[in-house]
Amino acid sequence: MLDKTQHLFDDATRVTAGDSCWQGQTSPDYWAFVGPFGGVTAATMLRALIEHPQRSGDPLSLTINFCAPVAEGGFDLDIRLVKANRSTQHWSVEMTQGGGEVATFATAVFAERRPSWSHQAAQFPQSTAFEQALPYAKIAAPWVKQYDFRFVEGEPKLGTPLATPASAFSKVWIADRVPRKIDALSLMSMSDAFFGRVFHARGELVPFGTVSLTTYFHADAQDLAAEDTSRVLAVADAKIFHKSYGDQSGELWSPQGRLLATTTQIAYFKA
Amino acid sequence: MLDKTQHLFDDATRVTAGDSCWQGQTSPDYWAFVGPFGGVTAATMLRALIEHPQRSGDPLSLTINFCAPVAEGGFDLDIRLVKANRSTQHWSVEMTQGGGEVATFATAVFAERRPSWSHQAAQFPQSTAFEQALPYAKIAAPWVKQYDFRFVEGEPKLGTPLATPASAFSKVWIADRVPRKIDALSLMSMSDAFFGRVFHARGELVPFGTVSLTTYFHADAQDLAAEDTSRVLAVADAKIFHKSYGDQSGELWSPQGRLLATTTQIAYFKA
Repeated sequence: MLDKTQHLFDDATRVTAGDSCWQGQTSPDYWAFVGPFGGVTAATMLRALIEHPQRSGDPLSLTINFCAPVAEGGFDLDIRLVKANRSTQHWSVEMTQGGGEVATFATAVFAERRPSWSHQAAQFPQSTAFEQALPYAKIAAPWVKQYDFRFVEGEPKLGTPLATPASAFSKVWIADRVPRKIDALSLMSMSDAFFGRVFHARGELVPFGTVSLTTYFHADAQDLAAEDTSRVLAVADAKIFHKSYGDQSGELWSPQGRLLATTTQIAYFKA
Repeated sequence: MLDKTQHLFDDATRVTAGDSCWQGQTSPDYWAFVGPFGGVTAATMLRALIEHPQRSGDPLSLTINFCAPVAEGGFDLDIRLVKANRSTQHWSVEMTQGGGEVATFATAVFAERRPSWSHQAAQFPQSTAFEQALPYAKIAAPWVKQYDFRFVEGEPKLGTPLATPASAFSKVWIADRVPRKIDALSLMSMSDAFFGRVFHARGELVPFGTVSLTTYFHADAQDLAAEDTSRVLAVADAKIFHKSYGDQSGELWSPQGRLLATTTQIAYFKA
């Protein structure tokens, strides 16, 4: 039995160190419809890298490919330091269950980020304050309960399919329901916490699954500590839905207006 | 000696089949400053997958991590089908040279794309026609010579560093200098053919290198055949430059207004 840690999220993403093979287990608290919430799976793989004794620097990018459904229970993480340079590290992580085929596959880059010219070209999205926005009340899956979603724009209206597609754009505050300071792990998980863009565009739930997700981290541990926040303002949009796949791009901002992470994904849908 | 094929690009991305290990070699025609142009490296890895006897479906996504400089000469591609499902395949490809450490590392998803509801939410960028735009005359590296760049907006003005950052946005027609029909390989390569966003923002060349690049394909082979074009209208922008790394996101459009691919990357810079 694992001890309960302070926050469910840390519990859900807990890993046990091995040599190159680490262990973890899925969490009922972050369950989605047919498997664990992908964001927590990605955060678990990232946690194994962050806690790895050979790790140096902070997460710069992570790409996770969801290859097959993850079943409830334990899993193994096969970790490999593919290449280390003076200030960057390239990693890969494979998740398997019971010695079977690869269920998820991630590659990540870590970097020791040196001071440089700094310029934030993107504009902080205009938004009503977190406190003035209403919590999203429709809880569809256990993992959704773990977050406090407060839509500022583009709250999903799900029901009758729309005759003409609606905008896929959303602007939403995302916080852990039980407040937890934003770190790289929460950014990783929150990058997959947007609802499927196809739901927004069609106004209905359809079979949906993320295939590949990439997140770039624009703040290192020191920057995140300075922001000292437990929520992000998140925007997401889609450009295209075609032949059973659609894209998503998103931004995660600190309340103080710093761009913390950007994310893209391609997802399967049936409609 | 390899026979010369019809197009330099096909020559540059040629691979020789092995079992799990394929071979290729860098091309002087697509050389950048300190190594091969990353787009051609990515296209070469994609070509090995497309030509692989076990491949089914069309490229859906590819992420390539540039781990170390690639030297002039031959290289090996270690190819692995990580997981195959009914309609998708997950692949990984590792490039090494002379039995050394991994130089580049790619993961890719292929999919048999089934008909579905289709909706292109993004707007085709307004643009002057290819024929009315002027070819970019400043040729900095051999690979640039292989493309016909025609800037519509945001042509890089490189020289004295700017006092205040300029926009990092560009809109540019990209075609092979010797016309070649747009396929998944050219989309892969062209996704890395934007100049570094930091050059645009700062108005000067600085040390720069792509660390990780992800491209999503929104058109399959049949769609691309229907477009029947040898050029794309490409837009790119950046959101942030911070602590030695900056991002880029881009779109590649057919002249008829179809979104063919979207791409993101994170890159190192020194400034």
